[in-house]
Amino acid sequence: MHDIFSLRRTEGSARRGTLRLAHGVVETPTFMPVGTAATVKGLTPDEVRSTHSQIILANTYHLWLRPGLETIVEAGGLHRFMAWDGPILTDSGGFQVFSLQGRRKLDDDGVTFQSHIDGSTHRFTPETVIAFEEALGVDIAMVLDVCTKLPATREALEEAVRTTTAWAQRSRAAWKSVNTAVFAIMQGGLDLELRTRSAREIVALDFPGYAIGGLSVGETRDEMYVTARASAVLLPADKPRYLMGVGTVRDIIMAVDCGIDMFDCVYPTRCGRNARAMTRSGEYNIRNAAFTRDYTPVDPECDCYVCTTYTRAYLNHLFRANEMLGPRLLSYHNVYVLNDLMRGAREAIEGGEWAAFRNKHAGNPVAEA
Amino acid sequence: MHDIFSLRRTEGSARRGTLRLAHGVVETPTFMPVGTAATVKGLTPDEVRSTHSQIILANTYHLWLRPGLETIVEAGGLHRFMAWDGPILTDSGGFQVFSLQGRRKLDDDGVTFQSHIDGSTHRFTPETVIAFEEALGVDIAMVLDVCTKLPATREALEEAVRTTTAWAQRSRAAWKSVNTAVFAIMQGGLDLELRTRSAREIVALDFPGYAIGGLSVGETRDEMYVTARASAVLLPADKPRYLMGVGTVRDIIMAVDCGIDMFDCVYPTRCGRNARAMTRSGEYNIRNAAFTRDYTPVDPECDCYVCTTYTRAYLNHLFRANEMLGPRLLSYHNVYVLNDLMRGAREAIEGGEWAAFRNKHAGNPVAEA
Repeated sequence: MHDIFSLRRTEGSARRGTLRLAHGVVETPTFMPVGTAATVKGLTPDEVRSTHSQIILANTYHLWLRPGLETIVEAGGLHRFMAWDGPILTDSGGFQVFSLQGRRKLDDDGVTFQSHIDGSTHRFTPETVIAFEEALGVDIAMVLDVCTKLPATREALEEAVRTTTAWAQRSRAAWKSVNTAVFAIMQGGLDLELRTRSAREIVALDFPGYAIGGLSVGETRDEMYVTARASAVLLPADKPRYLMGVGTVRDIIMAVDCGIDMFDCVYPTRCGRNARAMTRSGEYNIRNAAFTRDYTPVDPECDCYVCTTYTRAYLNHLFRANEMLGPRLLSYHNVYVLNDLMRGAREAIEGGEWAAFRNKHAGNPVAEA
Repeated sequence: MHDIFSLRRTEGSARRGTLRLAHGVVETPTFMPVGTAATVKGLTPDEVRSTHSQIILANTYHLWLRPGLETIVEAGGLHRFMAWDGPILTDSGGFQVFSLQGRRKLDDDGVTFQSHIDGSTHRFTPETVIAFEEALGVDIAMVLDVCTKLPATREALEEAVRTTTAWAQRSRAAWKSVNTAVFAIMQGGLDLELRTRSAREIVALDFPGYAIGGLSVGETRDEMYVTARASAVLLPADKPRYLMGVGTVRDIIMAVDCGIDMFDCVYPTRCGRNARAMTRSGEYNIRNAAFTRDYTPVDPECDCYVCTTYTRAYLNHLFRANEMLGPRLLSYHNVYVLNDLMRGAREAIEGGEWAAFRNKHAGNPVAEA
């Protein structure tokens, strides 16, 4: 489970690669829709597949609390439980736990926290988290890390890097399953000296893949771009790079331009539930009165099931009537848009046309930075 | 649009027939899932079709108020608006309007009411309702009738029959479209003399089909059975008979046994949204703790997509996690169950095995009455 990645082509920093995982091949750059509680909200696995999703993300924190490990293991693992036979990546739960202000207590060995569902007490350590993810049977397991919200003091960031490295080492030692690839996570906030230290320490541990954590947590978009770009080059060229929690069209395009291969975000499904349509030419709210009698597709440039079957007027009606088909259809479309964007990005890098593709979809990064 | 029905076979009072409508053929007896606001809640038209639904019902009252006639007509009619190319029946809105206690005023010419959405004032007459339904382009349009909640005085029921007949006559005169079959509605509560009068009057007007209205509105189940049975024989044998608002397995089986051909109810989708699973052997709540680690299908006797793909444990988890996939999957399964029941009923009548089928699914009607 070490040589899972082949780098096939680059243009500038942008990379076109292939990930070989236990449940299938993933062409990169790739977007991973989020299935927090063992379901990409509102969509069946067949639909997730038909949006051209290659791999999905599920949340360790949520699954740990509900339905819990025993239920999923008895069901035959997470794939069978949710009837998705493609690759799955699980986060480590660290991000969620550190978001539980006042309900979690960190020590060197791990973190103790209270469930947001019933207040019950739980404990994550690097070892218990890896064991949980391996028992789920996922293709990629993220290590437990310490994610620091920004802005943060240098001391807090330095301490987070120190603990994250120590935990990465323990996770590496705890890793047993040949079907699961464990990825380490870089921290360090916006401090490039700390990013460099974090990268050096986790790369020395020789993981099959690396994530850039601690971004998209309060900094400006420009700060994120600069840090992502500087961080990406600190990681080995022959290993996949994953920028956690990034999901708008512009942010993904910019991150691909920084040399990142993998992304996840609740953005397209959350937007879908809230009537926000993502298109090749921008976003809009489908509930808006302007669309009540608009008989064009949600995105005229889109060939997805929703855009070839329904009109804006119909989706406008569904949202106004609080019909659950509305959130469902728009979530489908939004996930399709991001996957189609990724397909376009892959083709552009293969064809040596990445710069033009990037500028079309995100504007000139230098001019915007 | 008169000879839409062929009676193919009978066993006792139970009937096996075929309806030929503008958008397709419907084999009877048949169950019509309800798509109140131009959507069978939570399901796409493809899915509705794959539950073996042959015809769906939409509500004139709801569509009149939202999105309104202009939007649907501009979209190319109700079929295109909601992307369902099979037959559609619309009710007349009478039932909903007469449920608006204190917000509607009946006169001989029609009924004035206030929208439950925004309080705006609207008026239904037999003519405006037929014109609305024809403009939607539906296959079957129900006439505006006066539906009386039970219990009711003889005077109220007699007045409802008188107005319903007068409105049926006006609806008959207003009917223009050759693509729409207009069905009249019998009233009369539990009073068989009034039922007889109502039937005689509307049958004399020569409609292509007839509904039994004013049941499932407060009476006991036995009262409903007795009245449905007595009412059905008052209607022409060569015209389709529709019992409005009936939707549990037992009630449908009993109504088929009374000689009814068509049914509609929100029951399977409402149950689906509320975690209530319908099966060949009874109903249960899938949220129940007993199913948390039950890895069998929702209904082991079912071959639907949900039962062949997911476990009770997974649906239990989806409902507990408030994931919208839960209501969606269970609605699909419940509609499938009723349509599969109807398929079985048709085969049983064709094969001369209706009595056994009925007794298996609803017990002996005489013993229960």
